[in-house]
Parts: sequence; C-alpha cells; structure tokens
Amino acid sequence: MKKIDETRLKNIVGEHNIKTDPSDLYIYGSDSSVHHAMPWAIVRPETTRQVQDIMRYANQDMIPVTARGGGSGMCGQTVPIQGGIILDMKRMNKILEINLKDVYCRVEPGVVDDDLNLALKPYGVFYPPTPASSRIATIGGEIANNASGVRSVKYGATRDAVLGMQVVLANGDLVHLGARTRVEASGYQLHKLMVGSEGTLGIVVEATLSFVPIPEFRCMGVANFDSLKDAGDAIGSIMAAGAVPSMLELVDSVAIKAVNKTMNLGLKEVAAALIFEADGMVQEAVDYEINKMKAICKQHNGQDIYASYDPKEREKIFMGRKKLFPALSKYDDNLASTALADDMAVPYSKMAEMAEKIHEIADRHHIVMTAYGHCGSGCMHTKILMDTRRKDQWDDAKQAITEVYDYVRSVNGTTSAEHGIGLSKAASFKLEKSDSLTLLASIKKAIDPHNILNPGKLSQAPENWVTATNLRYSVNS
Amino acid sequence: MKKIDETRLKNIVGEHNIKTDPSDLYIYGSDSSVHHAMPWAIVRPETTRQVQDIMRYANQDMIPVTARGGGSGMCGQTVPIQGGIILDMKRMNKILEINLKDVYCRVEPGVVDDDLNLALKPYGVFYPPTPASSRIATIGGEIANNASGVRSVKYGATRDAVLGMQVVLANGDLVHLGARTRVEASGYQLHKLMVGSEGTLGIVVEATLSFVPIPEFRCMGVANFDSLKDAGDAIGSIMAAGAVPSMLELVDSVAIKAVNKTMNLGLKEVAAALIFEADGMVQEAVDYEINKMKAICKQHNGQDIYASYDPKEREKIFMGRKKLFPALSKYDDNLASTALADDMAVPYSKMAEMAEKIHEIADRHHIVMTAYGHCGSGCMHTKILMDTRRKDQWDDAKQAITEVYDYVRSVNGTTSAEHGIGLSKAASFKLEKSDSLTLLASIKKAIDPHNILNPGKLSQAPENWVTATNLRYSVNS
Repeated sequence: MKKIDETRLKNIVGEHNIKTDPSDLYIYGSDSSVHHAMPWAIVRPETTRQVQDIMRYANQDMIPVTARGGGSGMCGQTVPIQGGIILDMKRMNKILEINLKDVYCRVEPGVVDDDLNLALKPYGVFYPPTPASSRIATIGGEIANNASGVRSVKYGATRDAVLGMQVVLANGDLVHLGARTRVEASGYQLHKLMVGSEGTLGIVVEATLSFVPIPEFRCMGVANFDSLKDAGDAIGSIMAAGAVPSMLELVDSVAIKAVNKTMNLGLKEVAAALIFEADGMVQEAVDYEINKMKAICKQHNGQDIYASYDPKEREKIFMGRKKLFPALSKYDDNLASTALADDMAVPYSKMAEMAEKIHEIADRHHIVMTAYGHCGSGCMHTKILMDTRRKDQWDDAKQAITEVYDYVRSVNGTTSAEHGIGLSKAASFKLEKSDSLTLLASIKKAIDPHNILNPGKLSQAPENWVTATNLRYSVNS
Repeated sequence: MKKIDETRLKNIVGEHNIKTDPSDLYIYGSDSSVHHAMPWAIVRPETTRQVQDIMRYANQDMIPVTARGGGSGMCGQTVPIQGGIILDMKRMNKILEINLKDVYCRVEPGVVDDDLNLALKPYGVFYPPTPASSRIATIGGEIANNASGVRSVKYGATRDAVLGMQVVLANGDLVHLGARTRVEASGYQLHKLMVGSEGTLGIVVEATLSFVPIPEFRCMGVANFDSLKDAGDAIGSIMAAGAVPSMLELVDSVAIKAVNKTMNLGLKEVAAALIFEADGMVQEAVDYEINKMKAICKQHNGQDIYASYDPKEREKIFMGRKKLFPALSKYDDNLASTALADDMAVPYSKMAEMAEKIHEIADRHHIVMTAYGHCGSGCMHTKILMDTRRKDQWDDAKQAITEVYDYVRSVNGTTSAEHGIGLSKAASFKLEKSDSLTLLASIKKAIDPHNILNPGKLSQAPENWVTATNLRYSVNS
C-alpha cells in the first residue's frame, strides 16, 4: 500500500476533513452493492479549489481517487478496489442558483436529489430524473451513473437533464463543459460523455440542470394479470401505441407476495401487476393517456383495472411498488435480498420474454428472483434472494446472472439500464461492448493517463465479481 | 499534394464510385457555407465494409477523409481544407428497419431526412429533429452536426433521438455504440460523443433512431410586436412559464420586409413577429398551451394575435418563416445573403437583448443582419446581407460577427446552437471553450492519432475564417 501524505491533504482541506481511522475507512469501503474494499483515506473537500489541489497531489503521486456521493450505488461504483482516496463530495452541497427565467439551476455535486426537489417545489417545478434512492443519492452520483427513475419514461434520464457542468480533471485542471442554453450543437458533447462515466473521467464540481413544471393533474392506475407474459406484452403495446405514461411499472408475483407478507397490504396475489400513471396540465389529456393504457391492459387480459386522481388512492396503488425493497428483505427469513447485477434494459417487444426468463433461470439455479422495474423505459430490474451464508448460493447467483445477461445481449438489450456497471456488471459489460473496449480505453487513457480516477471499474474491472472484492457478507466456506 | 492511390480505391468501391475530374472536385469542394477548398478525390462507398477499407488505406497513407452528406452544412464542416478524400455517403441510403414494436428505426447515413419521414408517415410516426434543410440533409450529416429545427423546442435535437450507431473509426475498426433500448446508464455514452463531432471522430455507417407519434391536433398562432424587445421578452416569458410549444419562432423587421418584397405576402411590417405552435393528441391540451402563449404575447404588447387549427391558415402563418431564406437573397439587389457564422444560443432572458444587439451591431458595421430562429430552444439565427464583391464588407462582417459572439459569451450563451462550428465559427468556439480545448484535443488524438478525420476543423481551424479558404465569391480587392 502506498503511503498517503496526510500533512499535504490536511493543508488542503483542514484536519477535520480527513479521516483515516480504520472504522471510518471500513464504512466508506462499501456502497449499496455486495462489495467491500478498504480506502487509505477519506477526504471531504468543501470547494472546487480543494478538489483541484487534491487531484494535483493524487496525480503526481499516482494515488487512486474515487469520488463518492450518497453511497447508493448498487454495483460497487464507489468501492475503492485499488485503495487510495475516497473523495466524499457531500460537503459541497450548495444549491447555487435557481434561475426561473432561464429555466435551469446550478448545484454543487453533494446536493441530495430530494433536497433539490424540495427547493424547487415552491416555484412549481421539479427535477425529474430522480431515482428510487433520492433520499440519499446526490446529484454528483446521479450524473456519474446517469441515474433515472420511475418518471424517466416521460421526462428522461440524467443525461437528458444535464445542460452543462464544471469538472476537475485528473491533473487538477478545471473545465467548463456544455452550456446554460437549451441547445448546443457541436464541438464534442463532453458533458454527455461525463454523464455515466462513473467517476473515471473527472470529478463533477458543479452542474447546470434543467427542470420542468410540476403537472396540475396526476392519475395513477393499476391492472392485475394472471400471466407475466400478458403483463409484459401490455407494456410493449402501451409503448408501441405511442402512449405517454409518466410512470409504467411492473411488479411480479414474488414482489407482490413479499409486500403482502411484510406490509399486510392485501394485494391480490396475481402473476403480475402493472402500475401506470399519466400527468399533465389538462385533465382531458391525462384522461386520454389513462384510458389508452387501461384499454391496452384489458386487451392483454388485464383484470381489476382502475385508476384514480385522488392522492390517497394513488399512494395506496404505489405503496406496493414503493415498499418493495424493504419487503423483499423479509420475503424469507433464510434469504437475503442482495443488490447484485440486478438491472438491464431490453427492447419493448422482449419485456414479456425477459420477465419469464428471469423466473425460469432463478428456478433452475435454486434462488429467488423478482422481475420489476421502470418498464416503460425498457428497464427491468431483478432482485436476487439467496442464502448469502452459503458459498454455493453465490455461485448459483453468478451463474444465473450470467445467463440473464447472455439473454439480454441476444435480444439487443443492454447490461446497464440504470444501476451502472461498477464491478458487478463489468463482465457482462465487456461482452456487450466488446468491439468498443479499445476505443473506451483510449479515451480513458487520454483523459486520465495515470489511471487514478476510480481505477479498476467498468472495462478495467476483474472478470469475476464474486472474488473481485471482499463481499459484505460472511460466507461459510 | 499527396498522391491518391486511385487503383487501390477503385479496387475498394469500383471505378464508377470514384471521381477525380476537376469539375467534380470543384463542386464537392464547397457546402452551403462561404468556403471552398479542393479535395483530391471523391469516393462513394456503398457498404460499411468499403468504408472500413477506405479508412484503412487513408489511415496508413495519412490521407485526410471528410465525410459528406447533403452538403447543407453552413459553416464549412465538409469543406476539405487540407484536401484528401471526400467520402460521399449518399449511396448508403437504405432505411434498414422500421420497428414499430420497439419504437426505433435503423438507417444508413445517406438517408435524406425528408425521405425518412416519408417512410415513417404511413405508420403515424415521425422523426422530429428535422432541420430546415431536411429536403437535402442526410441523417449522417445531421448526426455529425447535432442538427435540430423548428420542433426541437418540444421534441429535442438529434442528440436526443439517437439511441445508438455503428461507426467506422480512423483505423477502419467498426464499433457499435449506444443501444436499441430507451435507457442505457453508464460506460461512456460514446454515441452521444459522436453526435456533433462533425466527422472528426469517426464515420457513422448506421444509426438507430427513436421516433414519436404524429399528433392528432396542431394549432399555430402569430403575434406582431412594435418592438423587438417585447417579442424577445415574450419568448423568455413563454418558456419560463413552462409552456410546451411545438414551435416558437421569431422573425424580425428585416425578415418580414424581405418576405413581403419577394413573396407579396402583405405581412404587416412590424418590428417583430412570433410564430407559435402547440400539438398533441387532445385538443383541450393544445388549446391550453395556445391560450397560455397568446396571453403572454398580449402581456408583452403583442398585437393582431390569432391562432388556427386549419392547415391552410397554418401554412399561411408559417409561409413568411418558411420562405425567409430565398426572400433574404432578394432583399436588396446589391446585397447577397451569406451563410456566415450565423447562429447562436443564449439563455431565454437574454433573447430580447440579443435580437436588439444584432441590429445595433449590423448598423454600426454597415451591413444588414436579420434576427430570427427557433427561439423556444434559446436559438437565434442571423443572416448577414452584404456586398460580397467588396473586400471591406467581408471585414465589416467579420468584425460584426466577432462582436456578436463576444456578446454571446458575455451572457453565458453558446457559439454553436444548430449550425455547427466547422471553419466559420471556430475562432469564437475556441474562445468559448478555452479551458477544455486541451481535453478536446486529447480525445481527438486518442481516437484519430494520425488526424485524418476532417482535419483542420473545430479547434484545429484557422483563426481567420475569411482567409481560411478560398471564398465562394469573387471579391474585388
């Protein structure tokens, strides 16, 4: 292990903004993934200048630097697999400007998504890419992962909302990318390149984001299905019909059972349910979208179809989806709900097949997998429930995931829908992007020649994610 | 001048697909800009394989290669300033797939925008980024320039519609970038990097594009203004109010006069007019948007405000805008309408000031400039009318443009709204992006180490665009 020059770092950020205590290092060694690796120091910059100085030092001494926001990454994006500095960006959490006339805001990277939306709300606008982890996810982390969420089907992902940014490069240089205007034609869209680069190309220190009006009307509906295939086909038909849902979510039988068991919601235990929403400034337009989606659900044998504008009813409909994460962890006392390589996107017409495939593969490998997600965006998530104490279950999970991703590639889907690549999805990512890995590596080398920015991730990650790091679980051998 | 190995090229594409006749070379030496430079050969590939073989040869012999679509670039993007091969992509013009279920189409780069939309129309969908030059502009050229147009205010620019692409790199390697799915989170959004790179990073040989439903209802309105400032302020207020126009265009007094003079439209010769449109599947929603925009125009002293769903009325309203280009060339027999550095984007709140600034600067430099454009996207175009025979008028134009762009930068606007950078806007681009030019150059070098892909453009372009190439005008000294 290289030695960190603590004195130099203290001179940059002050003693109170450095942590090297083993217990602190341990905590910062994991995110929301299954991975763990120890950093050498935690550094908490408060200004752009400090980030520049830290990078100049790290670049000179070739110390790995991994920027970290809320730690909600699910694929090990911020697990410091090669040690080095964890750059905790949460102290840079100022909302610098809310410009209603020019329809943008400027924020520091440590601003939490929900806090931004809280600040925007009095002005009748919102920042729409918001992922499910918005209570802790920071804008910087969302940019690094090109985050998206339930409303991205209508309003787009982070990449669509980022107009520009300031980035500190590996050598400490500060660059202004993108613009504060709605259009910008050419000259390399470097801010779009930074979005989704998982901290491997630069440290975002400021972002210019667009926002949109909060709609006057929201209507949410639900439909139950006796077969997963019918539900999947309904999703495909809704999107192919040009409907504009502001939300289109799938929950399967595993998810429904889990939620019923832990929340006592009394949901009908069907094979699958679709939750759909439309929003807008004019009720007739919202009605139009909702009626279209209801009709398509009916065509695909949907049952118990209903929809409501009432906030309480909407909350009730969405409750099953919202509480899915905690519920899954209580599905079976012997099975832990793990954040593994658990999301993907496939073309709409493959949604049904994908959902069925997940269950078939899970059964064959003696684990439980649930199919759910923001299917209106082509996005399908899974959760793997398994006995994490048993080594063979990790092998089962690994094999199941490999098969899921083999299928995804075979139908022109993608490894990375929302949760990023990090460590857990790197093997599949490398297969999917096999012909552009050299290009990717040449860009990385050009921008970060000493490979200090979040090294060992994406195409640099080890092939076997199970052995890539220490797992955050005690596994019996 | 280097020697082209004609035999080798003939072996790749066949004799009929090579042109070296001086008259052909002359024609391909210009686009829709003021620039001209002679290429060494025109090569017209018909397959991806041929493009790969051409690039392998060019990379080995370090021959510049400039891909060319419809030749509608307005900043000299395809003018081969360092000679070499013009790669005429128009023979690769197949629409490969229209996939209604998965809501994408796949096309070769030589497909003309209007032809794509003609093919999509029977299915009730359209490809929305469409620029004004859609009768000749190709999808490949639109990707290279991140083209956008009248409807981009609602539907986005090319960068928003491109899901994925196949690209031949400088060394002849074929890479698949992006995906066929709606979301794709991370791992470097290289397809977004290619969009707007003006042929300097690779040759697009196939693109996967999204499309959207053709709306059932379209309503277009118009408002006249006695001051340019009022019109500009109305634009800002419309966008700040969260309105969703499907079109929001400004035409100023110069434009109106020109159109009246040549088309006899009898438009009221006011200081400025706004043309606005809303569209959708539900008439009430369209009404809502139109009424909102009408009310805001009225608040800003708009007059003669009216709107119509009737296709004939809409055509009449839009006629003045549509015929602006040919009309401007007839504004004054002694003045030619030139495609110079003629577009920019500024934050909405600066629209009014920008429009007034254009007129003020033009007056001071004894030229005529018109302010118009897709202002709902923050985009403002100008046309410069000048006596192209007079050398001093070129100097006047250059000075005026410099001042316009100095202003644009001072209000956090951008040099490149829609028309790209190429040669004409390079000087301003370099000032605007001064802190990221090194980054840009390092990426270019990593991807195209021999600098053969459209060399001498963007940040590589000469400082003085007037002397950068032979002008396409006979100028008296």
